[in-house]
Amino acid sequence: MSEAHWFNGTPLQTLREAIRQGSFDGHTAGYARGRVQGNVVILPKHSAFDFLTYCQRNPKPCPLLAVSSPGDPSLPELGKDLDIRKDVPRYRVFREGTLVDEPTDISAIWRDDLVTFVFGCSFSFEEALMEAGVPVRHLEKGTNVSMFRTSIMTKPAGPFYGELVVTMRPMPAAAAIRAVQITSRYQFAHGAPVHLGDPSEIGIQDLAHPDWGDPVEIRSGEIPVFWACGVTTQAAIANAGPELTITHKPGSMLITDLRNAELTIC
Amino acid sequence: MSEAHWFNGTPLQTLREAIRQGSFDGHTAGYARGRVQGNVVILPKHSAFDFLTYCQRNPKPCPLLAVSSPGDPSLPELGKDLDIRKDVPRYRVFREGTLVDEPTDISAIWRDDLVTFVFGCSFSFEEALMEAGVPVRHLEKGTNVSMFRTSIMTKPAGPFYGELVVTMRPMPAAAAIRAVQITSRYQFAHGAPVHLGDPSEIGIQDLAHPDWGDPVEIRSGEIPVFWACGVTTQAAIANAGPELTITHKPGSMLITDLRNAELTIC
Repeated sequence: MSEAHWFNGTPLQTLREAIRQGSFDGHTAGYARGRVQGNVVILPKHSAFDFLTYCQRNPKPCPLLAVSSPGDPSLPELGKDLDIRKDVPRYRVFREGTLVDEPTDISAIWRDDLVTFVFGCSFSFEEALMEAGVPVRHLEKGTNVSMFRTSIMTKPAGPFYGELVVTMRPMPAAAAIRAVQITSRYQFAHGAPVHLGDPSEIGIQDLAHPDWGDPVEIRSGEIPVFWACGVTTQAAIANAGPELTITHKPGSMLITDLRNAELTIC
Repeated sequence: MSEAHWFNGTPLQTLREAIRQGSFDGHTAGYARGRVQGNVVILPKHSAFDFLTYCQRNPKPCPLLAVSSPGDPSLPELGKDLDIRKDVPRYRVFREGTLVDEPTDISAIWRDDLVTFVFGCSFSFEEALMEAGVPVRHLEKGTNVSMFRTSIMTKPAGPFYGELVVTMRPMPAAAAIRAVQITSRYQFAHGAPVHLGDPSEIGIQDLAHPDWGDPVEIRSGEIPVFWACGVTTQAAIANAGPELTITHKPGSMLITDLRNAELTIC
């Protein structure tokens, strides 16, 4: 069944079943509205303490939603029947840092020493911004968000280290203020911005040429607003070069049972 | 020098130097106002991944402020010259779960495999409640907060498991509502309450007989409000029974450089 058969109103269980069977393997943006979607990183237990410490030290790029027990494919905090070996639409498998496969199921390579980490993602707060009338231009244009390396170094832990990667969304100043308020409530999804205004202050030379994603127009009277990005984690893992890493394919997230509104604070 | 020489207005560096030299070894409540004080747990690396996972799964009782690298006695996120071997006024040393010593310095027993965990404590939000005019009776009376075991089980991780322990503060309903608002901003210090009203709903039989601390009067028109408590962590560690555990002595906290106002959200 092709992705075109799916629409945003598909019930959660129908969508999960299709993902589990491999018949839905595309991007999850806009699907299962109101549900928390997660970035996924799976590492051998040998690397898990250092990586968990890295996340604890860098909560804005790495807002942990759950950590599995070694070898346990379930994630009871995130969904009562989740199986991390099958419930991501498409995976990426890296060996010694090299991409070797993009399967829709990782049951065949699952091991008793694998630990799953799930992080919140910006889909959660973008939904809230849109609902509050704050413009999110890349969504309006149907393009990918602009992502940039910065000169801000994350706090290292063991072999995990690297630059903070940020997403950028342009908006008028009043909307930026409102966006700070709204995203502060979404700590599980990168939280408040890390910077706004002059990009050179965080080492970004040219907003027209993002390091990942698509460029986005900045109109007169608008300022760029920068949020920590989950790609930071991928860069830190690439630097550490663990023997085996499994992640979701960017955009094809783990859809959890949790509702965004359950996790917001204040 | 006796504790009586110290007063709440002592500058941070003076107080830290006295703690480091062992001349201040008492309770830290009310000292270094505005600064974040921390619960301390030190464990061998062998237990650190499971314990860190336990904290990730139970953020209300275990709000992590920092995790050290194995063997590293510094905590750069919490203070630029902190040395965890000397900067807690008084420690407790447990071997196989048995209390064996209460030193003021642990340099002699420090090891290359020890990992330090620091958690926020309720001192931070109590200061905010008092400033907002919300009554905190045990502070007004100069007694210890009432603490209770509950029937709520924390989420286990490896050998770490146990009941949630809570603190209780009685207050009028309007103050309870304000307390929910205020403490929601202090996620680094146990955050919002876990329960209010009928204590039997969380397995507490008799508020007049706390499991730890002192009883506190509940006046007509007041309801009990319950927050997750750091003692939860101690119970989980006792259940796990690691070979070596070092903690602060209750009430004698690590005083950090961080200000409460730096860590509050929204």
